[in-house]
Amino acid sequence: MEYRNLIDVLMSDHDFADVVLSGGNFINVLTREVYVADVSIKGDYILNVGDASSLIGPDTLVVDVSGRFIAPGFMDSHMHFESSMLTITEFSRFSIPSGTTTLVADPHEIGNALGPIGMKAMADEAAHVPNNVKLVVPALTPDSPGLETAAYDITSKDMPDLLNYQNIIGIGELQGFSNVKHVYRNTPEVVTDLLASTAYARSLGKVVDGNAPELFGNELAAHIISTAGECSCHETTTKEECVEKLRQGVYVFMREGSTQRNMAECIRAVTEEGLDSRRCILATDDMVAEDLEKLGHMNEIVKRTIQEGADPIEAIQMVTINPATYFGLEDVGILAPGKRADIAIIDDLQEMSVEAVYVKGKLTAYEGKMLEELPKYTYPDAVKHSVKVAPVKEEDLGIKTEGREATARVIGLIPDQNLSDSFEEPVKVQQGIAQADVQGDVLHMVCVERYGRNGSIGRAFVKGFGITQGAFAESIAHDTHNIIAVGTNLKDIAHAINRVIEMEGGIAVANRGRVIQEMRLPVGGLITDELTGHEVSAGYGELERIVNEELGGKVHAPFMHLSFLALSTSPKWKLTDQGIIDVNNFKILDPIV
Amino acid sequence: MEYRNLIDVLMSDHDFADVVLSGGNFINVLTREVYVADVSIKGDYILNVGDASSLIGPDTLVVDVSGRFIAPGFMDSHMHFESSMLTITEFSRFSIPSGTTTLVADPHEIGNALGPIGMKAMADEAAHVPNNVKLVVPALTPDSPGLETAAYDITSKDMPDLLNYQNIIGIGELQGFSNVKHVYRNTPEVVTDLLASTAYARSLGKVVDGNAPELFGNELAAHIISTAGECSCHETTTKEECVEKLRQGVYVFMREGSTQRNMAECIRAVTEEGLDSRRCILATDDMVAEDLEKLGHMNEIVKRTIQEGADPIEAIQMVTINPATYFGLEDVGILAPGKRADIAIIDDLQEMSVEAVYVKGKLTAYEGKMLEELPKYTYPDAVKHSVKVAPVKEEDLGIKTEGREATARVIGLIPDQNLSDSFEEPVKVQQGIAQADVQGDVLHMVCVERYGRNGSIGRAFVKGFGITQGAFAESIAHDTHNIIAVGTNLKDIAHAINRVIEMEGGIAVANRGRVIQEMRLPVGGLITDELTGHEVSAGYGELERIVNEELGGKVHAPFMHLSFLALSTSPKWKLTDQGIIDVNNFKILDPIV
Repeated sequence: MEYRNLIDVLMSDHDFADVVLSGGNFINVLTREVYVADVSIKGDYILNVGDASSLIGPDTLVVDVSGRFIAPGFMDSHMHFESSMLTITEFSRFSIPSGTTTLVADPHEIGNALGPIGMKAMADEAAHVPNNVKLVVPALTPDSPGLETAAYDITSKDMPDLLNYQNIIGIGELQGFSNVKHVYRNTPEVVTDLLASTAYARSLGKVVDGNAPELFGNELAAHIISTAGECSCHETTTKEECVEKLRQGVYVFMREGSTQRNMAECIRAVTEEGLDSRRCILATDDMVAEDLEKLGHMNEIVKRTIQEGADPIEAIQMVTINPATYFGLEDVGILAPGKRADIAIIDDLQEMSVEAVYVKGKLTAYEGKMLEELPKYTYPDAVKHSVKVAPVKEEDLGIKTEGREATARVIGLIPDQNLSDSFEEPVKVQQGIAQADVQGDVLHMVCVERYGRNGSIGRAFVKGFGITQGAFAESIAHDTHNIIAVGTNLKDIAHAINRVIEMEGGIAVANRGRVIQEMRLPVGGLITDELTGHEVSAGYGELERIVNEELGGKVHAPFMHLSFLALSTSPKWKLTDQGIIDVNNFKILDPIV
Repeated sequence: MEYRNLIDVLMSDHDFADVVLSGGNFINVLTREVYVADVSIKGDYILNVGDASSLIGPDTLVVDVSGRFIAPGFMDSHMHFESSMLTITEFSRFSIPSGTTTLVADPHEIGNALGPIGMKAMADEAAHVPNNVKLVVPALTPDSPGLETAAYDITSKDMPDLLNYQNIIGIGELQGFSNVKHVYRNTPEVVTDLLASTAYARSLGKVVDGNAPELFGNELAAHIISTAGECSCHETTTKEECVEKLRQGVYVFMREGSTQRNMAECIRAVTEEGLDSRRCILATDDMVAEDLEKLGHMNEIVKRTIQEGADPIEAIQMVTINPATYFGLEDVGILAPGKRADIAIIDDLQEMSVEAVYVKGKLTAYEGKMLEELPKYTYPDAVKHSVKVAPVKEEDLGIKTEGREATARVIGLIPDQNLSDSFEEPVKVQQGIAQADVQGDVLHMVCVERYGRNGSIGRAFVKGFGITQGAFAESIAHDTHNIIAVGTNLKDIAHAINRVIEMEGGIAVANRGRVIQEMRLPVGGLITDELTGHEVSAGYGELERIVNEELGGKVHAPFMHLSFLALSTSPKWKLTDQGIIDVNNFKILDPIV
């Protein structure tokens, strides 16, 4: 018994610590103090924090960390591995050296693309990495039943199977009830089913993350109640919203990811209003491989939080004790007797530069590098081959209409937001097909159901990408992850889509009738287990460069923007395989007025 | 489904709140703010806190609470009903009007006297009161196996039965490993068994309370680890000890009960050192009926904490959100959507005077009085008749020795402490029996095993009670609760003991050969289900008055002091049915040197 062994070391005279970190400035996230203390480690665990002298034996490794700061390893409390396109293993190779030792991931993209089998495969991978990786799973796929098609329809029936599986600690963001008023009115059966799931999760003592963008008052209360307990929200964008959620008991996950950055607004609830910050937590939501490689992970987010005026220790509490308390993860988040020895050694508190990282008592990273490579993880065949649709033909993709002109509904991309705009614009019609207006930046966009369930294709016009030639397609299209494509002409769109189908998932750029760049994403069409993190970072950068330099694109992160134009839970108009979705009214719109 | 009903009220246009507390100063224990807000209630639960206007219908009761403060109902996080000698019902009649709506009780006295059947009977009573009563049960009875005799030996074998029973939420104070070094050295099998119990409790997601008086460094670490997670301690007596425990992740239950008052020292860790107080909690441990009746309950403790310099809201956090977080009681401790509507309406924050108390949405007490009497609770016969020993004879009680003089070991009472002193003093011997020295305050003390297990009698001399005539006996003797008695002569001692036996538990005072006052405690010899709280308060006061006025006693609370002279876990010498216990050395000492 591990605990008995620790007690033996503490109380006997003949057994000693394996490692003692000696003389560092100990950051106590429990008391908000910094003081000099030794940290003694045996096996995976902390023996004691304080005076280690009686625990140092002939074989104890004593590491002088004087002048440096010792903190619990950091935690990212809400993230999607899928956004990085990396396996847990490759993601961890980037995130461990930056001091992050616990990741709580919501695999809802894989859930949409593969169903329970995919999420359980990720939970299995989590058991193969040294850092602490836990999953919270969706209670509902697709987010908007009837308005889009996922590979598998997750409902309350799946909760016993999922919530009792290894490394799955609860239900992830309750997107299905984000749009409270509309869901309550239009699909009350979704509310009933979510309540069955959340009650079951709570009966197991598991967490339920909320998702309450822009909710206040009765709608916020209804959302909180739907989680059957105390929930979190990672979609808080203003100080006022943050204050209101903290007042109502919501753990606010202040988001600071690759594109969505809400921390600076949210932290004002603490820095300006002086609110108790025990329910404030930092999270990334979505991080791309390039940012992980170049900027770091939670250390970078903590640094920015300090730059916004937060007390450094209070900011560190937001990635340690606060989330550990929320998730009920009793073995991490603090450095105290019996806890996992997951430790970040920081050399500069303002810069949050991490010198060394211990994972389960073992020095795992030093000066930004892993000391030992994690073995590459290959996913089983059962979670590949998620693309089950036959190649498309150019003539399947056009918007059919009559006459010589028509008024089209045009979805408007808003840079750096999930939200979209809506326009009505005149388009020309040739041979019964509504035409793009490349000069006016009115382009074709299609979304092809890829799971072999119904073969639906959604069609719309889109404004905002600005490409002047070619097309690009990807099997990343939030949250159901059908194949979405945008282009100046239907021929290149068909080429790009068919290459994604041929690769069984991935990203492809086509121009002048041929595919000019691509990246394969074999796991559920979302993740690669073939490339390293660096290769993904470089390959994705090259894809973006080609879209913007060779096709003439005008928007930063064109693939990410395209993927969010399918997100049926965020207003105003989106495109799924079922067509244009009027999000606020739960309706499918014809692409032609 | 209750939650569905709440969501319906919030989102529909045709259903409304039952009660709205309107315009009060809302104390938000989450954010540490006070602001004007309405609290809306439906059934047992909070609907919303904020603007109630859309929730007020024709049948809504709107209560104007402007000018008053609204706080979550208070919580006593560590208490023993047995100390009050009251049933849960009678205790609640006192504690609800003072604003306390949640009690976490450790029934370890009943556990010693009756075993699992007694604790489950209490858990059953907890289901009959409107307030929220939960139990944490001992993992070990007796505390010191081999050195004392309980009715039943609780070990890890009993945990599945107990920890899955209604209203039992964890393991109570881990007294069996308080004296870490000595237990580790002398009875390592106890450590092994406790670890089996605590690991099992954690596997169920249940709490484990620690008990770490005066522990620091490696011993404190070993104690924390023995709880298999984050523990509490209600035996912290100095600021330094409080600082150390908070640093190590221990939830410090700052004790402020009828006799043991440690809050004023402990709170200095917050008021002087500025430590984060999220793991500071207030608890009473032991409260007698008279104090409950005359002073109040947690409101009084909060008031004293404020008087010691704590911020009022921070002090209220210590009886609401802080303990709710520790225990994982997600339905209480904050007022937010979906929580139990357990509410204290306070008219003066400095005085902590409670005007009204809502329990599960119902106005239950007003201006210090219950609005509706709780039905009296009668315990089943199976938990009575716990006294199974035959009457004692005077000649069984004396300390036998030879010669005309001897050197006796004398246990020294220390006023207002559980700790005791030790002396060696000369005594006279007559007819082979060592004699008391009434003038020198060296009196007889005996402890009679009462469960019919071995008939042992422990004998010793004691100094400190100061009575000059008569004797008194009680079936309250921590923690095994055999019958303990003190007296100037063996005849009166025998009379008092035999009356306790005849009553099947209770307290008796004898003088000049007859019993002059008594109180029956039929439930396990510790609790009465026959008297009201007021009757117990008055009757116990009369017993104390008689000891001090008629027998000449000199110590405040003589029965409580006597009962703690049997507590084998607190140094230095104690008396159990097995004899004088040398606590620090785990040895039984002869009463004659």
